[in-house]
Amino acid sequence: MTISAFQDYLNEHRDRLLADLVEACSIPSVSGQMDACEQMAAWVEARLQRLGASVTRWETEGGPPIIWGVLGEGSASILSYSHYDVQPADPLDLWQSPPFEPSVREGKLYARGVSDDKGDLMARIHAVEMYQALHGTLPLVFKFFVEGEEEVGSPHLAPVAQAHADELKSDGCLWEAGEVDEHGRYTMYLGVKGIQYLELRVRGADTDLHSAYAPMVINPAWRLVQALNTIKAPDDRITIDGFMEHVRPPTPAEEALVERIPFDGQALRSRWGLRSWLNDMDDREALRQFVFAPTCTICGLRSGFIDAGTKTVLPSQAFVKLDFRLVPDLTPELVVELLRAHLDRRGFHDIEIVPLSSLSSSKADPESPFVRKVIAVATEVYGHEPVVYPSHGGSGPMYPLASGLGMDSVTVGVGYTGSNLHAPNENIRLEDYFNNVLFLARLLQSYAGA
Amino acid sequence: MTISAFQDYLNEHRDRLLADLVEACSIPSVSGQMDACEQMAAWVEARLQRLGASVTRWETEGGPPIIWGVLGEGSASILSYSHYDVQPADPLDLWQSPPFEPSVREGKLYARGVSDDKGDLMARIHAVEMYQALHGTLPLVFKFFVEGEEEVGSPHLAPVAQAHADELKSDGCLWEAGEVDEHGRYTMYLGVKGIQYLELRVRGADTDLHSAYAPMVINPAWRLVQALNTIKAPDDRITIDGFMEHVRPPTPAEEALVERIPFDGQALRSRWGLRSWLNDMDDREALRQFVFAPTCTICGLRSGFIDAGTKTVLPSQAFVKLDFRLVPDLTPELVVELLRAHLDRRGFHDIEIVPLSSLSSSKADPESPFVRKVIAVATEVYGHEPVVYPSHGGSGPMYPLASGLGMDSVTVGVGYTGSNLHAPNENIRLEDYFNNVLFLARLLQSYAGA
Repeated sequence: MTISAFQDYLNEHRDRLLADLVEACSIPSVSGQMDACEQMAAWVEARLQRLGASVTRWETEGGPPIIWGVLGEGSASILSYSHYDVQPADPLDLWQSPPFEPSVREGKLYARGVSDDKGDLMARIHAVEMYQALHGTLPLVFKFFVEGEEEVGSPHLAPVAQAHADELKSDGCLWEAGEVDEHGRYTMYLGVKGIQYLELRVRGADTDLHSAYAPMVINPAWRLVQALNTIKAPDDRITIDGFMEHVRPPTPAEEALVERIPFDGQALRSRWGLRSWLNDMDDREALRQFVFAPTCTICGLRSGFIDAGTKTVLPSQAFVKLDFRLVPDLTPELVVELLRAHLDRRGFHDIEIVPLSSLSSSKADPESPFVRKVIAVATEVYGHEPVVYPSHGGSGPMYPLASGLGMDSVTVGVGYTGSNLHAPNENIRLEDYFNNVLFLARLLQSYAGA
Repeated sequence: MTISAFQDYLNEHRDRLLADLVEACSIPSVSGQMDACEQMAAWVEARLQRLGASVTRWETEGGPPIIWGVLGEGSASILSYSHYDVQPADPLDLWQSPPFEPSVREGKLYARGVSDDKGDLMARIHAVEMYQALHGTLPLVFKFFVEGEEEVGSPHLAPVAQAHADELKSDGCLWEAGEVDEHGRYTMYLGVKGIQYLELRVRGADTDLHSAYAPMVINPAWRLVQALNTIKAPDDRITIDGFMEHVRPPTPAEEALVERIPFDGQALRSRWGLRSWLNDMDDREALRQFVFAPTCTICGLRSGFIDAGTKTVLPSQAFVKLDFRLVPDLTPELVVELLRAHLDRRGFHDIEIVPLSSLSSSKADPESPFVRKVIAVATEVYGHEPVVYPSHGGSGPMYPLASGLGMDSVTVGVGYTGSNLHAPNENIRLEDYFNNVLFLARLLQSYAGA
C-alpha cells in the first residue's frame, strides 16, 4: 500500500473536499452564540453520521453539545479532539472578505475558524473518508470528540471527560492546532504547560489618603512590592518555599527533542526589539526555558493614581495579577497552597489570594509507541523530521483528555505561522490542508495489519 | 491699649466687613481663568490702595499678576502671603448654594475660596484697617504679597521671590492656611515638608507579548519590583544610599512642640478603618513621624492588564509614581541624584527617572522672636496656647518666601477642620473669622513702641 493512491484520490476529489470545508466554515458558530453553535453541532453530527460513525450528543448544562462519533474496528484506538466553535470575527472592517463567506485567494482559504479549528476537524473527517473509500473499514477505532466551548475555556470538558473516561480512553489522542513553521517545517507539540492565574490583593485604609500621612499609615502598594519580592529572586528564580522541588526534570528524550528544534533567536529578538534574552541566556537555553521552565509572571499591577501627571495620594488598595505556567508535577491547587504558606510564614497574612482560572499541565511521553508512530508517519509524509516540542510554552485544556486519562496527546493541525488565529483574515494554505489529510490517512493506514 | 477697643470695633463694623468678604468671594477667580483672575487682581489692587498701601503689580509671563502692597512705618516688618485664585468649584451639583454667591447659614459663610484663601487675605486687610481706624499708622512695615497661581502650583513664585528678595525680606512671614481644630484649638504650622514627585519607568519588549514567553523575555514589572525593593526596607526605612544621612534631627524645641500637640490617634484610626499605625507605632511616635520623617510613597503603580478578569500578557512597560516628602537638609535635586546613583550602583541603568514636580522644604525656628511673638499673641487672643506643628506633613510653596529668604514663616488662617478645602460647600465660621482679625490686629499692635 503506497502513498500514491491517496495522492490520486486527493487530486480527483480536491474540489469536493474544499467545498465541504467551505460549508463548515460558512456557519457562524461564534462561541457563546447558541443558535449558530447548535446549527454547527447538528452539521457535525450529520457529517459524522454520513461518514458511518455511531454518533451521540453529549449534552452540557447551559452550553452547546459535545458531538461524539465512533467508527472503525480493531484493538487499537485513537481519540480525536477538536472544536466547532470559533472566535468572534470582529473587528470586521479589517477582514478582506467576510469572515463567514469563505474565500480562496492565492492558494489560501480565508474564513473565521478555518484553522482554529474547523480545518483540523475536516481534515480528519476527510482522511477517514478517503481511507474508507480506498481500503474499507478503518483498521482501528477512531473516536471524534468535537466540543463547542473551546473558545470560552471549555467549562464542561473536565466533568464530561471524567464521566466518559472509559469510552474516551484510547492509545493516544490527536489534539488540535500544530502548524507548518516559517521555514516549511511541520511542527507538533507533545503537551502544554498548566496555568494558575490569580490575584494578590492588599488593602490599607478605608479610602485613599493624602500622602502626607505616609509616615503613619500602611501603604498597600509597598506591602505588595515587599511580598512580591519574596517570591522571585533578581535572577528570575521562583523562590516560593518548596515550589521548585515539584519541578520534574526533563527526560533525556525531551532534552533531545528540544536540541533538534531549529530556533532563530536573533530574528525573534529583532522582532520584539530586544538586545538579549533574560539573564543574557543564549538562544538554546532560552528555548529550553520556554519549553521546560515554570513561570511566575506579573501580567498586571495596579495601585493608586495611574493617569498622567501627579497626585499625592496614599493608595488604599493594590493588586497584582500573576500567571504561573506550570510543568509537571506542579498543579494549580499546589501553587495556591504553597504560595499561601509562603506568604503566611513571612507575616503576609493580610494579603488575599484570589484564584481566577487554572488549567493542568499535560505531557506525552516522546518514547511512547503512539508518539513514535505519529512522528514516523509525519516524517514520511512531510519529507522531513517534524519539529517536536515536548511542551508548548503556553497552556490549553488538554489535560482532561490526555495526561488526565493517562493518555499521550499530540497536536496535529492544518495551520501555518501566518494563519492569523483569533485575528482578522484567519486563513490556511490549501497545500497544508491536503498534506494534513494525507498525513492523517497514512497514520490510519499504519494500524492496518498491526 | 486693651483688646476691648478692637472687640467693640468688630461688633460695630461686623456687617460691613462681612459684606466686604462676600464681595471678594463673589468674583469667580478660578485658577487659570484669566479674565476672572484679572478682575480679582484689580479688585485686590483697589482694595489695598483704599487701605492706603503703596501698590504695585508684578506681572508674570503668561499668568495673572502678583499684587504687591506695602504700608506702615517702623524698623520691624512682616510679609503676608496669600493668593486670590481659587480651586474650580465642580462638582457643582454638590453645592447647597452657588459657589460664587456667598451665603450665610447657621453662622457659617459658604463660598468657593472663602477659606482658601480669600478669607485669610481679607482678615489681614480688615485687621490693618481696624488698627489704622483706632490707632493710626501701623507701627511696622506690613507687606501684602498676593498671587494668583497658588492652585496651579505657583509657577512664578520662586523667580519673583528671587528678583524681589530685598523688598520681600522681613522679620517674618504670615503664611496662608492654619485652622481651628475639632476641639476648638487654634493650630499653626511653622513649616512644610518639601517634595520630589517622580516616575520610575521600565521598558521591556516593543509590545506586550503572550506570557508563554516569560521564561525568555524581561518583564519590566518584575524589574520595577526588584528596583523598588532596594529603596525601602520592610520596616519602611528608606534605604537609598546616603539618603538618611541628610536628615537633620529635630531640635529640642521642635520635639517639645510636638509633645504638646494633642493627638487622638484612636479617633483617626477609626475614621480610616485602621487597626494600628504602620509598624505598630504608638500614637506619639506616629505623630512624631508625621511631623519629622521624610517619606518615599508609592502614589501609583501600573503595568500590563489591570481590568477585571484574566489576560495572560507579558507587559512591555511598567511605571511607578513616587512622592518623596523631604525634611531639611534633603532637597528635591539631591533626591534625584542619590536615587540615580543608587539604581546605577545596582545595575538598574535601564530604569528611567522622570521628575514631575518638586518643592523645597521650609521650616521656621520655634525660638525666633517672630515666632515667639505670634504664639504669645495667639495665646492671649484665643485664650489657650495654640497647637504648633514644627512642620506640616504635607508640602506647599512656602520655601521661596520663607527659608529661601532666610525668613521664619508661620501659617495663620481663618478656617477650621470642617472648611471643606478644595471640595464642595467650602465654608468658614464667622466666629473664627473675626477672632482671626482680632488676633492679627493684636499682632500689629504688639509692635507699637517696640
